Amino acid sequence: MLKIALIGAGNLGSHLFEAWSASSEVQLTQWLNRSYAHPNCKGVAVIQELSSLAPTDAYVLALPDREISTVSAQLPTTGIALHTSGSMPLDVLKNQGGKGVFYPLQSFSKKQSVAFDRIPFFLESEHKAHHSLLEQLAKSLSPNFFWMDSKQRLQLHIAAVFVNNFTNHLYQIGADLCEKNNIPFSVLFPLIETTAAKVQQLSPNEAQTGPARRKDIAILEKHLQHLDNPQQKELYQQLTLAIQQQYNDEL
Amino acid sequence: MLKIALIGAGNLGSHLFEAWSASSEVQLTQWLNRSYAHPNCKGVAVIQELSSLAPTDAYVLALPDREISTVSAQLPTTGIALHTSGSMPLDVLKNQGGKGVFYPLQSFSKKQSVAFDRIPFFLESEHKAHHSLLEQLAKSLSPNFFWMDSKQRLQLHIAAVFVNNFTNHLYQIGADLCEKNNIPFSVLFPLIETTAAKVQQLSPNEAQTGPARRKDIAILEKHLQHLDNPQQKELYQQLTLAIQQQYNDEL
Repeated sequence: MLKIALIGAGNLGSHLFEAWSASSEVQLTQWLNRSYAHPNCKGVAVIQELSSLAPTDAYVLALPDREISTVSAQLPTTGIALHTSGSMPLDVLKNQGGKGVFYPLQSFSKKQSVAFDRIPFFLESEHKAHHSLLEQLAKSLSPNFFWMDSKQRLQLHIAAVFVNNFTNHLYQIGADLCEKNNIPFSVLFPLIETTAAKVQQLSPNEAQTGPARRKDIAILEKHLQHLDNPQQKELYQQLTLAIQQQYNDEL
Repeated sequence: MLKIALIGAGNLGSHLFEAWSASSEVQLTQWLNRSYAHPNCKGVAVIQELSSLAPTDAYVLALPDREISTVSAQLPTTGIALHTSGSMPLDVLKNQGGKGVFYPLQSFSKKQSVAFDRIPFFLESEHKAHHSLLEQLAKSLSPNFFWMDSKQRLQLHIAAVFVNNFTNHLYQIGADLCEKNNIPFSVLFPLIETTAAKVQQLSPNEAQTGPARRKDIAILEKHLQHLDNPQQKELYQQLTLAIQQQYNDEL
């Protein structure tokens, strides 16, 4: 059975721990979790220091991007180090053993449970010899995995910021407008869901509707007049312009 | 049984026709559809001219906002006129009979079928006497309906533009980045779905993750360096700023 050590206990680290500590396909040998005071959690040895790491097949680094280099440099000299970052290249890893990337494309919140089997994993490996190890590790969590180089992965991460972080901010603006006007935010849920579902059937280009696409100047101006928050107004204008230009370009 | 005439055959009009022509709770007496050459469609009389409208209980105007005034002024003098616009006030109606609003909060595309029973309807009526008619009409399509005045409805429509039209544009940017980098857009679907689902359990404020919220300057700069399209870059900056300010304000 594949033996791995997990380094990190943030949003991603905690969810990986939950999944792998209960896995029959992977044996979690150690968990570096500095905020956990007990030596054992769910049968896994918890350690506080990198120097306590024992040699194992793979070290999974669920760490902030800026810590990957330094931490990887302190790993045991055997075994493959895998980082989990969308935007960092493979060669940010400074360990002496194998190097690879194990990037799950999802937004993790500690409060929210995770269905790993629906999450796509993006894999990269310095050496072909490690392909089967990486695939075995991915399969322990999800049937959806893809091989991808560092350049593509960075672009995918940028795309993910748009469809996840930035979309969530648009939801935030919707919630804010509802709250200010004494409307339950939940009335927007069916629209939010349909918008997310529609784009999986039509392309976003076909799915676009609304005053910006229709170039309905009267409504656009009325909306701007009735937006009090200058930042929301600015975003309304920028996004409207972007939509208008997209459909201009197509004429 | 409630008798209604439907005016308009655009995205919304076509879907309302499909639903009401098959309804056992509402009798569709006439459909004004200028692009349909036959005098009858699914048992409903199709007309080409407003002057062909016969008196009925309610006239539902599924029309572009700018046509509501002119068309409503030409309606028969009895019966209630109902417009279906989010951003137009009740008093844009110029008919002599009753006036009301029947606004379904959803984005309609002709290509995509509609589950009206999941859509919330927002109702407004000039006279209390028409409340039961409007509720009966709403119930013929959906159990979710709310009373709301014109001022609130305009704000709700602005919120809908953010969570639907603008969100769809962010999906479009995601699709564009994927296409340019030879990545199937479908790998983003689980993330799009989770983002839409999460906001229904956590608040958008709690659900926010990513480099903008974390103020991860190194990643933000790397993403901007690797975005070629100036408009995408501008939106990335604006949305990042908006997220950063939101979490600043909370400190």
